[in-house]
Amino acid sequence: MKIEKVNLQDKFDLFQDQWNPKIIGELNGQFVKLARIEGEFVMHNHEEEDELFMVVEGSLKMELEDDLIEVNSGEIIIIPRGVMHKPIADKECKILLFEPKSTINTGKEEGERTVKKLNWI
Amino acid sequence: MKIEKVNLQDKFDLFQDQWNPKIIGELNGQFVKLARIEGEFVMHNHEEEDELFMVVEGSLKMELEDDLIEVNSGEIIIIPRGVMHKPIADKECKILLFEPKSTINTGKEEGERTVKKLNWI
Repeated sequence: MKIEKVNLQDKFDLFQDQWNPKIIGELNGQFVKLARIEGEFVMHNHEEEDELFMVVEGSLKMELEDDLIEVNSGEIIIIPRGVMHKPIADKECKILLFEPKSTINTGKEEGERTVKKLNWI
Repeated sequence: MKIEKVNLQDKFDLFQDQWNPKIIGELNGQFVKLARIEGEFVMHNHEEEDELFMVVEGSLKMELEDDLIEVNSGEIIIIPRGVMHKPIADKECKILLFEPKSTINTGKEEGERTVKKLNWI
């Protein structure tokens, strides 16, 4: 297997759809994903998985049960397993996700935003 | 435990030493680390751990046994377990690392660059 670097911006240029994470890397049972998001997601949690969000471009508001944290470009937030959270982006925001391969984007809150089949780009 | 975001640049401002990764996050048995690097590291591998490098500022050259890959700001490279690699930075480069908590920076190539005690910042 040839090792190649990944340019985040080049990968973002490959898709325009929102709330549909794409896989760009895999290591130690985890996926690295990119997503474009805009608007409000559903409040949800992941019972067994911690989740890292890094804002690559734009600004994300992470709503928690008792807090609202603005995460900007160059910033990271880690949501521990079990913690209810809802990502919100007033304008389109580009994010990198790092989480176990088993993670479903909406946790148990299955609905129209649930992505069951993740694709590599 | 209060959830807080992490600003990468603010964290880099907290230390100046090179080749001495600092922990800024933990999830799913993995650490997120930051490091300043300059010059040549030792060629090494990690038998059981895949390792992600993201260049936050500057430029890194990743020497492999049969390749040399330049990784620039906004780019990622994943080194699978077992693969010999040597990071090189002609000028100081700021990187983010993502790897299992068990990873030793020099693999089995213990020497002056080996960091045995990792600190949180």
